[in-house]
This record gives sequence, structure tokens and C-alpha cells, in this order.
Amino acid sequence: MSIIEDKLKELGLQLQAAKPSVANYLGCKRSGELLFASGRVSELRGEVGTDVTEEEAKVAARDTVLLILAIIKQDIGSLDLIQDVIKMQGFIRSSANFTRQPYVLDGASDLLVQLFGMNGQHARTATGINQLPFGASVQLDIILQLKSITT
Amino acid sequence: MSIIEDKLKELGLQLQAAKPSVANYLGCKRSGELLFASGRVSELRGEVGTDVTEEEAKVAARDTVLLILAIIKQDIGSLDLIQDVIKMQGFIRSSANFTRQPYVLDGASDLLVQLFGMNGQHARTATGINQLPFGASVQLDIILQLKSITT
Amino acid sequence: MSIIEDKLKELGLQLQAAKPSVANYLGCKRSGELLFASGRVSELRGEVGTDVTEEEAKVAARDTVLLILAIIKQDIGSLDLIQDVIKMQGFIRSSANFTRQPYVLDGASDLLVQLFGMNGQHARTATGINQLPFGASVQLDIILQLKSITT
Repeated sequence: MSIIEDKLKELGLQLQAAKPSVANYLGCKRSGELLFASGRVSELRGEVGTDVTEEEAKVAARDTVLLILAIIKQDIGSLDLIQDVIKMQGFIRSSANFTRQPYVLDGASDLLVQLFGMNGQHARTATGINQLPFGASVQLDIILQLKSITT
Repeated sequence: MSIIEDKLKELGLQLQAAKPSVANYLGCKRSGELLFASGRVSELRGEVGTDVTEEEAKVAARDTVLLILAIIKQDIGSLDLIQDVIKMQGFIRSSANFTRQPYVLDGASDLLVQLFGMNGQHARTATGINQLPFGASVQLDIILQLKSITT
Repeated sequence: MSIIEDKLKELGLQLQAAKPSVANYLGCKRSGELLFASGRVSELRGEVGTDVTEEEAKVAARDTVLLILAIIKQDIGSLDLIQDVIKMQGFIRSSANFTRQPYVLDGASDLLVQLFGMNGQHARTATGINQLPFGASVQLDIILQLKSITT
């Protein structure tokens, strides 16, 4: 059994099947112990501050982490091979006046810390954006470090 | 002869002379076997969805890869020293309603896979953006891994 | 005494106390010798090209480097442990017609080169953006390499 998937279950969450890439890219790519996950957009569509609320976008940020974890599991076999979350870039599709991107992104960061503990704490950048693929509200990309036994 | 430049020739493409940086930055910088290429903008100007079409932007994305490869060749001596394409960030200058950024970015990804085969497959993030340097339509930045013999 | 802080003093600049993160993220996170600093926004608010000038934003970019260096010093103990500046991503909150992001970002790059010499030269990407946390004018995130004696 996977320790991380058990923790997801305890939180009342679960991984869906990994979604295939919509274009010519990999779900993630490895360089040494670093794993670069491709950017994924939320299933939630709409501009934060007009079409959708901050709270809805925060939940969407959390759920986008689940989409990325599903892909990583498919590619490397188990989420238990993740040693550390290193860096997250979050783009929040923002109305002209919406400036609370860090609070939206906490939806993603909180889950990573719940799952991976202190190793899940990470550097990150929360940025507004005017448009995202398919009109999504949130886009995340994450750099992880794998356990060295997997090298 | 360069294997990669031969493949470019077969595709009917060729490298131009590397363009100097327009401000105080390097064309690329190395850390161990990772090579971080600076973001480069397309020669194509204009907003995708209004001023320019998706198809024009896709060609511009491909041509921006050529600009980056010219700089890398100048800096490290040969494109044959590239082991893997790891990660690409693509910013597509998008009108309010343009949401097909992944398809534009395939112009860049397709060329990298044609040149480097399976090693050219990469993680990436395709993001809309409201404005880019000089009003360009596309901006790419790429992380590569070099062959270990070059360390 | 710190060599880098001495250089700051010569330039008439100094580090302030590191500001705590406004949400659930670390100031920086390390992976091997790479140090990923979280994105930080300038204290300057407003859109470049309308609310604030290019020159004001350039100074703000420089000052944002000081905010990041204060956090790094707090986290790793001394700025003298920095070996190389590898990559910078700069988001410049830009009006519809402002396209001189590279010149704004030189405010940050110039300071890094003044402080770290040739090792301070770096790859970077200068991107426009429609909105940033708290309405800031500039956001920087930086990847550094630490000296190997610190591994």
C-alpha cells in the first residue's frame, strides 16, 4: 500500500486516472533526482474575481495537485518515491482587480504539506495571468525531488 | 559534422547567427549537467487571436526554438552535446478569448522531438500572457540536460 | 564579515530584516546545490506604463533582489555561500502597450552582477503580466547554486 495514497484517503480525497496530455509533451520528465511535472490546468474554468470566487479557485488549486500526482504515479510507479516538493509555479487567471493569488495557491500548498509533511514544504511563486489553456482558473507546475534509491 | 544540424537541414531549416542579448543577461547558464536557456521571444509580433492566427504563432514557436538553439550552439560549441530536453515554459500572448496555447506550443515541441527523438520529449507549461517584450507573440524558455562527458 | 554584504554597503544598499511568507510556503528550498527562492513581489505597487514609470519599476526590481537576499541569508546563514546565480524569472506588471520588460529587469540583474561578479551573470526570462499579488509592479524568482562546501 502507498503511504501517500493512504493519507489522501484519510483526507477524503483520491486520485483519478491520469489524464493523457492534450498535446506533444510528457506528463513529467526526470533529470537526476529532480522530476519536472508539466503544467496542469484546473477543471474549474473562469476568471477569479469575476466568474469564480477566491474560495472556489483555492479548491481548484488543491484538485489540480491531485491531477499532477495521478500523472506522477503513472510515470514513476508510486508517490512514495517522492522525497521532497521543491518548487511550485502557480498561475491564477485573475480579473483586473484580483490580487490575492497567494491565498488561492495555498489550496495546493496546504495539500502537499498534509501529504508529505515537512518535506512537502516548498518554494513557490504565485502569479496572476490573463488567460490559460481552455479558459481554466488555475495552472500549476511543480518540481519534485525523488528518493535517491530510485536513481 | 553535427548530427542535430544535419537533421535541421533535412527538415529544411537552419540556424541563423546567435542574436546578442538585448539586456544584462546570458544566453544560457549551466549548473552541473543542467543548462538553463534564457527566455527568447519570437520575431513574430502581435496578439494571438486578434493580430495573428494560431497557425502563425505555431510557426513562430518553432522558429523561436531555432533562436535558442543558435545561442546554445554558440555557448557550448555543438548541439550534439545536448542529452535531453527537460522542461519548456511557453508564454503565448493571448487575446481575452484565446485558450489554445498548448497547440501553439506544439510548434516548438514538435521540432525538439524531430531533432532529439525520444530524448527531445519534455515536460512543459503553456501559459497565456497579456504582453511580452517588444510585443512578441511567443516567448520560450527551456531547461536542457547535457551529456555527462561534457561535465 | 560578509563579502557580499560589504559590497552592498559600498553600493549604499543594505539588507532589511527578512519578511515572513504571507502564505503557506518557504522563503527558499534546496535540492542538492541548487537553491530555489520563492517569488517575491516589489513593495512598489501599480502597473508599469500607466501607474508607474519604467525607471521606477527598474529600481523596484533592484530592491526586490534585496528582499530575496534577506530571506536567503536568514535561511542559509550567509550570502557568501552563494556560488552562482543561475536563472531569474521576472514578471513585470505591464499596461497593454508596455513592452520594455527586459530593461526593467536589468535593475535586478545589474545588482546581482555588481555583487557576485561574473558568477552573478545569469540566464533569465522577462515577461509581462496583467496582475500580481497585492497589485505589485514586479515579481522575481531566482535559482541559485550554492558553494559545494555547503553540501
